[in-house]
Amino acid sequence: VDKPPVWIMRQAGRALPEYLALREKHSFLEICTSPELAALVSLQPVKRFQMDACIIFSDILVVPMAMGINVQFSPDISLSPVIKNREDVARLKRPEMNSALGYVAQIIKNVLSEVSDSLAVLGFSGAPYTLASYLIEGGHFKNFHKTKMMIYEEPALFKELMKKIADAVGDYLEMQISAKATALQLFDSWAGELAAEDYEHLVLPYLCQIMERLRPKGVPIIYYINGIGNLLELAQKSGPDALSIDWRIKLSEVRKRLGQNQVVQGNLDPNLLLVSKEVIKQRVFEMLNQTNGKGHIVNLGHGLLVDTPLENIETFVTSVKEWAEKNEPKK
Amino acid sequence: VDKPPVWIMRQAGRALPEYLALREKHSFLEICTSPELAALVSLQPVKRFQMDACIIFSDILVVPMAMGINVQFSPDISLSPVIKNREDVARLKRPEMNSALGYVAQIIKNVLSEVSDSLAVLGFSGAPYTLASYLIEGGHFKNFHKTKMMIYEEPALFKELMKKIADAVGDYLEMQISAKATALQLFDSWAGELAAEDYEHLVLPYLCQIMERLRPKGVPIIYYINGIGNLLELAQKSGPDALSIDWRIKLSEVRKRLGQNQVVQGNLDPNLLLVSKEVIKQRVFEMLNQTNGKGHIVNLGHGLLVDTPLENIETFVTSVKEWAEKNEPKK
Repeated sequence: VDKPPVWIMRQAGRALPEYLALREKHSFLEICTSPELAALVSLQPVKRFQMDACIIFSDILVVPMAMGINVQFSPDISLSPVIKNREDVARLKRPEMNSALGYVAQIIKNVLSEVSDSLAVLGFSGAPYTLASYLIEGGHFKNFHKTKMMIYEEPALFKELMKKIADAVGDYLEMQISAKATALQLFDSWAGELAAEDYEHLVLPYLCQIMERLRPKGVPIIYYINGIGNLLELAQKSGPDALSIDWRIKLSEVRKRLGQNQVVQGNLDPNLLLVSKEVIKQRVFEMLNQTNGKGHIVNLGHGLLVDTPLENIETFVTSVKEWAEKNEPKK
Repeated sequence: VDKPPVWIMRQAGRALPEYLALREKHSFLEICTSPELAALVSLQPVKRFQMDACIIFSDILVVPMAMGINVQFSPDISLSPVIKNREDVARLKRPEMNSALGYVAQIIKNVLSEVSDSLAVLGFSGAPYTLASYLIEGGHFKNFHKTKMMIYEEPALFKELMKKIADAVGDYLEMQISAKATALQLFDSWAGELAAEDYEHLVLPYLCQIMERLRPKGVPIIYYINGIGNLLELAQKSGPDALSIDWRIKLSEVRKRLGQNQVVQGNLDPNLLLVSKEVIKQRVFEMLNQTNGKGHIVNLGHGLLVDTPLENIETFVTSVKEWAEKNEPKK
């Protein structure tokens, strides 16, 4: 692409008044599991703003649900039963995708039918480690203590769990590819908490498994870790088409370590969308100057904050377009 | 030193039964502000275990207290008034050290009088950014939102605050040097949350100010950030004698990026001290093999967890000694 594309993690949902209006009539889970409502919500941000991608409205916990875990989303996220031992892991199902998660494929199809070819439609999944930590902690995170105990004390059991999740995630993303998603994002939000050696031995192999399985399909995969700075080289090794970078590290530094051709996504601090328009624009320009807008999918470094003013989302998106116009390559 | 020295961040205090017994008679603040009681508590871990350093029992919030802020430690940490504007910053006092914090110098002197010369006695302070974030958030952290708002919207005001804190911290550490502390640690626990460019422009200059001021005194300074991986090169630039590294990055990787001569401290995950002795020993050995025990102060990557079994602290310390015996340089 000539100009850097832009979208925002969590662009669909809680920050938009039209979503909140819909939530007065439907629960979060009702919207997630209804292909019509979820497609409607997915399209809300791209109707308001000039984003270049539409990510489907869903939740990473639909995969644990399909594996046989009860997930409660309100008032707080809670999963049951929590995974403690070999029997718990054995009980996890490998879901039959069409019956268990076919509704997500339908969301993708519904969104695709509403948009022009120029808009990318993104599917996504939680990555195995992040889903494993939800399953082990039950959603109540306290320094990832239980997850780490399993990693340190029972690495073989942890690997079994990772293998089962990686199989399900692979199936799930294949289904999204069959539904014609333009690209896919794997969210490994919590992997940045691990020691690099544990990431290397207990997380990376299962990512590689997924990437190798999907690579022949030719659909780009974006891989996100919050706190990716310590794991850059390992994350690159898994072979994603793009790395989604949090705000803690400069994109220029990422390129210095991983090579100038590494496609990056990101990476402003979501808190920056709560400040004045001048500051937002300045930070967008500074970020784009680091990459010259090449091989750069503009985004935040983590999800959009709930209380972000709409006009600031607008400023973020239009600043990217403005930078691109000013820096158009000479013909 | 021939053998890698070992101590543990938060070794004095909540993990030890003799401390908890003392707390039944005295509040946390009573112990902190009593040179006799604080010295007693500082010495408790080194009486039980073969650590090579004794860090004084204190709290990083004694500096804000001396600057005129009310600090409540129980049931939760709470500071008032919180720092919001120029007037709040102007009101912060530059403490007269002997009257406001002389009791801390006395703790160091009391500890020194009880130990042999082979034991290092460590003083410490919170680093300016971490103290600033406490002052701005009032102790109730929610994604460091308020701190970031000041950084993004009012960087000049934030710099004023940092300057005032850096002056006080410099005074405070100078006093600790006068009291004959063997070495000093600066805790910048929260700086790892910042974007690298903000750390560089708004945090690093004030660290440099402190380091430059103390360097002529010849007392080694250890600098800690939780999540230092993104900031390694910048943290090194501030010029500390040792960098204290969290568990997320391998020490071998730190050396690769900063040079083989960089003195490091760390870096096992504190959660590892909740697992079996075999695993603790294995991880200690793996860590020491990365540095060959050279220029390496063995420690955890963050503070000791409250519920750590005493026998595991013992295993951690003795594993370091055991590694050193096995790997003694041949004469």
